[in-house]
Amino acid sequence: MLSSELQHTIDYKTKPLGALGHLEQIAHKIGMVQKTTSPKLLNPHMVVFAADHGIAKEGVSAYPQEVTYQMVMNFLGGGAAINVFCRQNGIDIRIVDAGVHFDFPEGLNLIDKKVRKSSRNILEEPAMTVQEYQQALENGQSVVVEIAAAGSNIIGFGEMGIGNTSASSLMMSKLFHVPVVTCIGRGTGLNDDQLQNKIHLLSSAIEKYPDIDEVDDIARTFGGLEIAQMIGAMEEAYRQNMLIMVDGFIATVAAAAAWKKNPEILNNCIFCHVSDENAHLQLLEFLGQKALLHLNLRLGEGTGCALAYPLIQSAVNFLNEMSSFEEAHVSNKE
Amino acid sequence: MLSSELQHTIDYKTKPLGALGHLEQIAHKIGMVQKTTSPKLLNPHMVVFAADHGIAKEGVSAYPQEVTYQMVMNFLGGGAAINVFCRQNGIDIRIVDAGVHFDFPEGLNLIDKKVRKSSRNILEEPAMTVQEYQQALENGQSVVVEIAAAGSNIIGFGEMGIGNTSASSLMMSKLFHVPVVTCIGRGTGLNDDQLQNKIHLLSSAIEKYPDIDEVDDIARTFGGLEIAQMIGAMEEAYRQNMLIMVDGFIATVAAAAAWKKNPEILNNCIFCHVSDENAHLQLLEFLGQKALLHLNLRLGEGTGCALAYPLIQSAVNFLNEMSSFEEAHVSNKE
Repeated sequence: MLSSELQHTIDYKTKPLGALGHLEQIAHKIGMVQKTTSPKLLNPHMVVFAADHGIAKEGVSAYPQEVTYQMVMNFLGGGAAINVFCRQNGIDIRIVDAGVHFDFPEGLNLIDKKVRKSSRNILEEPAMTVQEYQQALENGQSVVVEIAAAGSNIIGFGEMGIGNTSASSLMMSKLFHVPVVTCIGRGTGLNDDQLQNKIHLLSSAIEKYPDIDEVDDIARTFGGLEIAQMIGAMEEAYRQNMLIMVDGFIATVAAAAAWKKNPEILNNCIFCHVSDENAHLQLLEFLGQKALLHLNLRLGEGTGCALAYPLIQSAVNFLNEMSSFEEAHVSNKE
Repeated sequence: MLSSELQHTIDYKTKPLGALGHLEQIAHKIGMVQKTTSPKLLNPHMVVFAADHGIAKEGVSAYPQEVTYQMVMNFLGGGAAINVFCRQNGIDIRIVDAGVHFDFPEGLNLIDKKVRKSSRNILEEPAMTVQEYQQALENGQSVVVEIAAAGSNIIGFGEMGIGNTSASSLMMSKLFHVPVVTCIGRGTGLNDDQLQNKIHLLSSAIEKYPDIDEVDDIARTFGGLEIAQMIGAMEEAYRQNMLIMVDGFIATVAAAAAWKKNPEILNNCIFCHVSDENAHLQLLEFLGQKALLHLNLRLGEGTGCALAYPLIQSAVNFLNEMSSFEEAHVSNKE
């Protein structure tokens, strides 16, 4: 009923049928979530979850581990790409310490949700204990509860964590039963030798835990603290009936885990971009989703969401502001 | 010198090398046009050229010819998609009557550059006489002179004209020596029979003028008044050293004609989207260009430009506002 009412509203705007392409699907989706033909985006937020990874010390990234905390400081100073794009597009940004291997000084504008300093090294033991994983889900959830209470109805999730494409590749492999080698890319810029090393290490990690198959076990064993907090945050955003903007490969892996637990969550998700990271397009296809942007980004931080936000606003605006054929006295198709 | 200085500035921002993908190329391009590592976008404008086409009466479009003037009235009333997106993104919009088959009342906010009411029917005679074509180029040029004088340094071009995908397909076929059938799409939504009719008519038009090969002759014979004004406008925007946002298939055909006359113009062009219209991707490949957006739009009006504008602004903003590794005390690649 609402679905066809929305489609009718979209179809009778002064444009050829379907001529706004992907934006029409986004407009329809937002209308369905908000249960209205005149939806609104309120108080948009971006949450960046940061954490370190035990596996980083094995050389799976082109950058040293301290870049995680250094980039957190950069976020707090306003100088990172995500800051620039959020400022431009009127998006409130929150930085969450989900498990950075660093003692931050007091008095920073940082949300302290640290479960522990870095996840454990997957090559030695599961990334998190059951208790740590549970805590991470709850911590992520609590961040969203506060943002929703402040009147936001659209939230994007980004991440920072040296080593987190490795954790994500492992999770994707297990979640979708595909060989891990097809889930591995160059991350922030590995050369050929480094890539071979990454493939070797991640293959060992997969072999180490042959019996892990349940979604929370997969996330706990192979994931990371920022990924687990993102899963909890996305689940809460769904409970709060918010629109969920999903960023790149790592955020999409978190969304895939949340989807395994509750397929309905995809109704609220807007996939903002498909990254340059090898497996991301494949992952979106597994989820049956198409991304708004394809700009060869491979930065994370939520930058794809912040860049796509004006398009999402455009989808809402055409639905609310464009004239219908009747209103504008324009002849429809013969 | 400036090129490598720009590349160095881009490369030492706090992000992996190349991680902002297509936006890095746009930032570099804008820096080169404005000859600075800190470019600015000033007073962005969108110009929509509207005109009718003699060939429209042959049934090449799914919509009746009066939709051209009705949509012009819709633009002036602020209810069309291009109005919504320009409002959202702070872009000034100008509507130009380049040759609409209608007597508009006085007192509208419409720029009167009408050369004649509708181009001639290509199946009977060339779309424009030499004098009409020359006048159209000059009229388009004069619109840009005024906008540049008002301090704008970035301008987008859109169009409205029932029948203008036909004119564009014919021009593309002749400009690039490819069979016209590969340049034809469904326009605003033809069914199979209508598409066959369009292919038949456009093939006849091509056969009627076998010796036309020079770019201005092609545009004059097969083009339209809004396309010719766009060519003149783009040429002037290049002379004024403005950034030129190119919209969909029809605007890209105009850009292709301008490029045949002066290949340097591509240095200033930003191709904003690749449309759903069959031949547009092929045309961009002929020009060696990649578009910013791929949203399955097929609306024209300049909507692709207005939607892409925030991304162009993001390219400028990251160049100006992001910290370097040094400034932010972030470790670079090991």
